Amino acid sequence: MSGDFRTASIVGLGLVGGSLARDLAARGVRVRAYDTDERHLDDSVRAGIVSERIGPTLEDIAADLVVIAVPVDVAADVLRRAAPFAGGARLITDVGSTKTGIVEAARTLGIGHQFIGSHPMAGDHRSGWEASRAGLFSDARVYLCPSGAPTPALDLACRLWTGLGAHPECVDATEHDRRLAWSSHLPHVVAASIAVAMANAGISRGDLGPGGRDVTRLAGSSPEVWTAIALENAAAIDAALAGAEREIASFRQALTNGDAGELRRRFVAARNWFEV
Amino acid sequence: MSGDFRTASIVGLGLVGGSLARDLAARGVRVRAYDTDERHLDDSVRAGIVSERIGPTLEDIAADLVVIAVPVDVAADVLRRAAPFAGGARLITDVGSTKTGIVEAARTLGIGHQFIGSHPMAGDHRSGWEASRAGLFSDARVYLCPSGAPTPALDLACRLWTGLGAHPECVDATEHDRRLAWSSHLPHVVAASIAVAMANAGISRGDLGPGGRDVTRLAGSSPEVWTAIALENAAAIDAALAGAEREIASFRQALTNGDAGELRRRFVAARNWFEV
Repeated sequence: MSGDFRTASIVGLGLVGGSLARDLAARGVRVRAYDTDERHLDDSVRAGIVSERIGPTLEDIAADLVVIAVPVDVAADVLRRAAPFAGGARLITDVGSTKTGIVEAARTLGIGHQFIGSHPMAGDHRSGWEASRAGLFSDARVYLCPSGAPTPALDLACRLWTGLGAHPECVDATEHDRRLAWSSHLPHVVAASIAVAMANAGISRGDLGPGGRDVTRLAGSSPEVWTAIALENAAAIDAALAGAEREIASFRQALTNGDAGELRRRFVAARNWFEV
Repeated sequence: MSGDFRTASIVGLGLVGGSLARDLAARGVRVRAYDTDERHLDDSVRAGIVSERIGPTLEDIAADLVVIAVPVDVAADVLRRAAPFAGGARLITDVGSTKTGIVEAARTLGIGHQFIGSHPMAGDHRSGWEASRAGLFSDARVYLCPSGAPTPALDLACRLWTGLGAHPECVDATEHDRRLAWSSHLPHVVAASIAVAMANAGISRGDLGPGGRDVTRLAGSSPEVWTAIALENAAAIDAALAGAEREIASFRQALTNGDAGELRRRFVAARNWFEV
């Protein structure tokens, strides 16, 4: 990987962008960065991770690798602003949790040959530069979504993430968003909903045991990041939530009926899923 | 604590009973035990934890401390069978996740002066003797539910759990069950329901990131243990599930409306609860 990129420009030094900056710098890549929060930039320069700041216009974004690591509701706009100055980039990518919009934007901008959407499954409830760390992507799955026919950029994206210890998997953007609505967005919304329900019932997080704390941990996620994701992938998340609601309602019905066999069947189905 | 009990009889060597046996033996208490699974007994004797087996009739259960550590649907029956032979016990307790039924059973049996219900908040999705370990109760909250006016048994129960590093908290059995429906039973049922919904959608646990894995971890819990708890605390769990359903439905409504302000307000409320 190191040989592929001598320079990388990263827009957004949050959990993912910041961790990427750390990993790339550690591998000898010269990292350039922009963040709307000056303190994150100051910290990253002081830590010796970022070598050079990019201006807010992004006119000086040129680098071998360009990474858009901002919330999904502004990612397409940042890509649009960066594209005219990123003509020399071997790979342009993003790291957002939704892919249909950004991949379509890249196609519209005519940079489909350079752009590959990335989504590393490495986040947790923490966010921001403070939460970033080296090795975040180790053993993580990373979805790669091309914006058209395979190009050399796809190979470069594969080598980039493999080089950071991650496991790339190529998938169509629409299928990615459908799958992520289930595997990531649904758990986030459910954790947040349970948290609100517990707050209403006067139950604090300190009242929970280890299991309850795990189920509700994602309630601590960034409201900004997750409001954007929810709106971006609304239809698919709605379908997943409807599926979860159906199962909860069926469970309640079995409870109302005092139906031990049905309750047990549901818990067994859940454990079978867990153990596969 | 060690001075209070020279001998302890434990019925059920699962995660909680087995861990209690380990902790008590390590503190010099002579541990006697019964389990329906002979292999658990064999293993516990071979490990030097259990000194003596109790017969299945429980006629030889006499000890300073008697602990009923079986699923909540059979706990009251085991207590009824043990009571006639536990007259000399300074403390009789259980470790179940529901308390109204067992506390009422103790009262009916006329052993309210000896019996204190215990519920250590130390479980996770694992179960059985294999999952038991020393120190399980370290820093855990333990609810104590007396079956009547305060007796010396309550002091003994406090000292027992404090001696194992736990934090006892006295609470009425009915209030315990209401609170636990929210803090523990609801997360279990929701995790299981999401697991079933994901299974239906063709999403495997391997598709999940760290956050999704945490939210669904309790889906791996014992179907036997949790079917019993669900039936035992059905009304309170139903109310908690209804509360969770309302929040999920409100979230979906905000999603349908594309209401960024409402979505953000909900995620902020969840994070505020998380951070308190």
